[in-house]
Amino acid sequence: MRLPEFLAKRRDALDHVARHSPARLAVGVFASVIAIVTLLLWQPIATTSGERPGFVDALFTATSAVCVTGLVTVDTATYWSTYGQFVIMVGIKIGGLGVMTLASILGLAVSRRIGLTQRLLTASETKTNKLGEVGSLIRAVIIASVAVEVTLALILFPRFLTLGVPALASAWEAVFLAVSIFNNAGFVVLPEGMAPYVGDWWMCLPLIIGTAIGAVGFPVILNVWTRRRSLRRVTLHTKLTLTTYAALFVGGTIAIGAFEWTNERTLGALPLADRVLATMVAGITPRSSGFSTVDVGAMHESTWFLTDALMFVGGGSASTAGGIKVTTLAVLLLAIVAEARGDRDVEVFRRRIDPAVIRVAIAVSFIGATIVGVSTLILLNLTNLRLDVILFEVISAFATCGLSTGITPLLPESGKVLLVVLMFFGRIGTMTLAAALALRNRRRVIRLPEERPIIG
Amino acid sequence: MRLPEFLAKRRDALDHVARHSPARLAVGVFASVIAIVTLLLWQPIATTSGERPGFVDALFTATSAVCVTGLVTVDTATYWSTYGQFVIMVGIKIGGLGVMTLASILGLAVSRRIGLTQRLLTASETKTNKLGEVGSLIRAVIIASVAVEVTLALILFPRFLTLGVPALASAWEAVFLAVSIFNNAGFVVLPEGMAPYVGDWWMCLPLIIGTAIGAVGFPVILNVWTRRRSLRRVTLHTKLTLTTYAALFVGGTIAIGAFEWTNERTLGALPLADRVLATMVAGITPRSSGFSTVDVGAMHESTWFLTDALMFVGGGSASTAGGIKVTTLAVLLLAIVAEARGDRDVEVFRRRIDPAVIRVAIAVSFIGATIVGVSTLILLNLTNLRLDVILFEVISAFATCGLSTGITPLLPESGKVLLVVLMFFGRIGTMTLAAALALRNRRRVIRLPEERPIIG
Ligand SMILES: [K+]
Ligand SMILES: [K+]
Repeated sequence: MRLPEFLAKRRDALDHVARHSPARLAVGVFASVIAIVTLLLWQPIATTSGERPGFVDALFTATSAVCVTGLVTVDTATYWSTYGQFVIMVGIKIGGLGVMTLASILGLAVSRRIGLTQRLLTASETKTNKLGEVGSLIRAVIIASVAVEVTLALILFPRFLTLGVPALASAWEAVFLAVSIFNNAGFVVLPEGMAPYVGDWWMCLPLIIGTAIGAVGFPVILNVWTRRRSLRRVTLHTKLTLTTYAALFVGGTIAIGAFEWTNERTLGALPLADRVLATMVAGITPRSSGFSTVDVGAMHESTWFLTDALMFVGGGSASTAGGIKVTTLAVLLLAIVAEARGDRDVEVFRRRIDPAVIRVAIAVSFIGATIVGVSTLILLNLTNLRLDVILFEVISAFATCGLSTGITPLLPESGKVLLVVLMFFGRIGTMTLAAALALRNRRRVIRLPEERPIIG
Repeated sequence: MRLPEFLAKRRDALDHVARHSPARLAVGVFASVIAIVTLLLWQPIATTSGERPGFVDALFTATSAVCVTGLVTVDTATYWSTYGQFVIMVGIKIGGLGVMTLASILGLAVSRRIGLTQRLLTASETKTNKLGEVGSLIRAVIIASVAVEVTLALILFPRFLTLGVPALASAWEAVFLAVSIFNNAGFVVLPEGMAPYVGDWWMCLPLIIGTAIGAVGFPVILNVWTRRRSLRRVTLHTKLTLTTYAALFVGGTIAIGAFEWTNERTLGALPLADRVLATMVAGITPRSSGFSTVDVGAMHESTWFLTDALMFVGGGSASTAGGIKVTTLAVLLLAIVAEARGDRDVEVFRRRIDPAVIRVAIAVSFIGATIVGVSTLILLNLTNLRLDVILFEVISAFATCGLSTGITPLLPESGKVLLVVLMFFGRIGTMTLAAALALRNRRRVIRLPEERPIIG
């Protein structure tokens, strides 16, 4: 058997699993990658001290990297060696690619099963026949992500140079940051984190824009790209994602700005221009890149609570962002507006939304809220910490956001393991759950008599 | 015009409003009663000191009484005179009756509009023709509530006597407590509150049972009463309410017991029998009578958070309990189970639940959560208090529960007014919203083309 033939067989096998049990594929791939990254990090050469890291720290960092979360139990810049940081970056890259391709494959599976003629890759349908849809998808995802990452790195590299960083170090920091930004990972290898760049527009604007591109999701990027000459004709998914994302960014930024404007420990001490920039960063990072240029731990209780809500919603579907996703929120809100108006159909942008989609949105958000609630309850019992900081860290892990009030390193091992489980479920569980629900559809012949309980 | 004729005309007018704009009726009646009770309390004779109370304190207490909440800004037993306490008791009685009748009227309106033949008062249908359904309903509610309250008072009266309280004082305290228990009001005129009775089964068992009867709701009481010879044939609403109520009681009691068992400031210091009793009281009062025999302020963070969830759910529909109601939770859970199994219909107890009911449940719970979230955000900004205690007080007010970590008296006036609004909306808003949603049903001729956004 020649090599191309061998590869073709492997590709067909992957295609088969992807078609028939996409959820199992997602869990299997992610668990394997996390296991490998954990082993690679659990080595003496991975730390600057040359000592073998604790297993839980290695597992936590690997999960946080592959699930593009950004929560850390040890400081990325000082604890891990360059080898360790390189492993983390590769973990982020594979994790980000994995999320985007798997979510897109799940989306394909759903649309195929439901029998819609309109597919995710409508534009490139004809020429994908040879490679198979899945192979074509993966290629498109890789091209798009590398293109954005290279662009970001090319913008950031000269900035580090002008700050007096040596050329090689500048290149490394620019590449790491570019990968971390596009994949919404929130990891930083800069010695003092992002704090010194709180007023640095050259650094923070690419951060804001790169984060947003990564967080709207691959289907939106592809759809906008293929429809770039006739932007009015983008899909309902694209319209819903972009409008909800923009509304959350604007609303979140204004509210966080209002809450923190006079807080001397965060925005209050900054000049006006820096304050505006820092507010925008604080407004976009909950959805869900998790970078912070001001000290989250010093923010007001109300800012934490608002950020909780923003993180829980998260970013776009099939993106590197987490949370229940902006379309889920949009569909829920539209359903409630329709209910309040007494309409039979849920309508938006001159389109009707299938009731089955609304049921999935309800299940995803309700199950997400339940997981957050139960995890919070467990962590409150495992520690003596208060609700405000526990809830923040739990939602940050579940929504793979990575913002932190600073308690993660202080948690007991059991608490850290709980966050590992939360990051994994938040990353893999939400999207596979939604796909699994959308794929199931049992029909019963016998219908029971109807009866109405009283509600409210 | 003779008196009976005059009364008959008034009754017909009430019947007309009740039929055609029940929501406006509910808001109007409650606002008027609260205004009158506020004026009656805003008098020098209402206080033991003989000084005129602050207007916000009078408004807060009146709202808390009429909305049967039980949150207080001043101590009921020591601040208010006997006249003041009597006004509070009358407020509770009118509020409790009002909630039960209005909710039942709304239920009637919904079932009439939807055109179901099965009515709330099926059993007594034939003989209600003369008085009108609404008049008959009010009579049945009054009879049922007075019967339970008299029974409770007769059980509690000898207990106070045996504790050495003078006869007249015993009678007063027994009547006040009986009214407060059945109406799930949570007000107490005993000098040291309920704390001295933490191990008193004679006091606490009537509290637990009376609370439960009041909290399952009038439709359930009536249904069980009329079907007492064939309990298997109760309505779906009754079955759902009782099973969910029981599950929340058992689950909540076990969890709270586990969290507090060794807390020396709450259960830990008590003998075993007292501990069991106190746990049961702590397990039933979040749904939503709000009596506490142990110090809520000394409970563990996890107990607060669990109690938050239990209070938010609350009790039965058309009951004196608040919250989004147990049937709302049950219907949501059933819908998610059906979705996970891929079933087309939501089924339980050999019955199918109308999708319209599920949409109302989603709207009620989502809007409730939004109100709680926004109020929490506002109160966090108005004070320097932390999320744990703010969230607890906000949910307690919204769900008209009345449990408190003790911060209500410490709030600024603006915060107290916010709680007043929350109590009013929680009491009136939830049920009128649900009815209004169920009554609306617009049909459009043109249906838009369907499109599926990606969820999760
Ligand atoms: K992140
Ligand atoms: K109450």
